Amino acid sequence: MSSSSRKARLALFLDTVWNRGDEDAADGFLADRYVIRHDPGDPWHGQSLDASLFKARLRQSRAPFPDQRFHVLRMVEEGDTVAVAWTWQGTHSGEMAGFAATGRVVTMTGTTLYDFEGDRLTGHWQEVDRLGVFRQLAG
Amino acid sequence: MSSSSRKARLALFLDTVWNRGDEDAADGFLADRYVIRHDPGDPWHGQSLDASLFKARLRQSRAPFPDQRFHVLRMVEEGDTVAVAWTWQGTHSGEMAGFAATGRVVTMTGTTLYDFEGDRLTGHWQEVDRLGVFRQLAG
Repeated sequence: MSSSSRKARLALFLDTVWNRGDEDAADGFLADRYVIRHDPGDPWHGQSLDASLFKARLRQSRAPFPDQRFHVLRMVEEGDTVAVAWTWQGTHSGEMAGFAATGRVVTMTGTTLYDFEGDRLTGHWQEVDRLGVFRQLAG
Repeated sequence: MSSSSRKARLALFLDTVWNRGDEDAADGFLADRYVIRHDPGDPWHGQSLDASLFKARLRQSRAPFPDQRFHVLRMVEEGDTVAVAWTWQGTHSGEMAGFAATGRVVTMTGTTLYDFEGDRLTGHWQEVDRLGVFRQLAG
C-alpha cells in the first residue's frame, strides 16, 4: 500500500472498530494474529490475539465507555509502522479497573505504534496516560 | 539532514544529555525554544523552554535517578518527526513526586514524538507509563 493509504486505513480502523464498535468490520483490518506487544496496564498486554480474542478485547475495553471516541492528532509513518498521537474521550458508564461507573466524561491521551503487513494490522506498541484516567475517576 | 542522521543524532542526544547528564552538550542539540508539547504528569508539561530552562528541567528530572538510562527500542521517522519507543531504568536515589528515595531500581517505558528543525530539536510529544512507576515506588 502507499504511505497515505495506510494512514487512511488506520484512521478508518480507529473510527469504525474502536469508535463505532463494529466487530464485523474488524475482520477486514486484522492479520491472522494481532499482538499487543506493549500496553502497560491493559489486561491484554503481551498477548497474541486471533480475531475472536481481538473482538473479546474490543467488547471488554469499550463496555465501560460505550460512547468513546479516538481523535487522531498526528501520524508518523515509516516502513511498516504508523505512529499515532491521539486523544480520547468517553463517558464512564460501567465498571473499569475497580472503579464503579461515575458518569463522568473522561479524557485520555496516548501514543501508539501500529504495525502493518500489507494492508493488515499485526499489532501495536502503546503508552497511554493511565494515571491521568485514574485521577479523573478517583478525584 | 538525511533520515538516518537524524535518528543517530536523537540517539546521541538521549545518551549524552539524558543518560550522562551532559548539560553543556545540550546546546548543540536544541533549537532556541524547546516545547514540552505534551507530557502528562511532567512538571514542565506545556512549557516552552529556552536553553537555561531546559537544563533546569534536565537537572530536576535526573536528580532522583542519577544513574538513569534510556534504551531506544524502535524509531519511526517521517518529515521532521522521529517517533521513539523506549525503555528506561534508574535507581530511585532522591525524592520524586512525593516519594522519598527507596533505593529501588525502577523501570519505565514511554513513546515520544521528537520534532526537528534542521538538526535541532524543537520539542516533544510524550506518553510514559507513570502509573507503572508509581506502583513500583508505592508497592
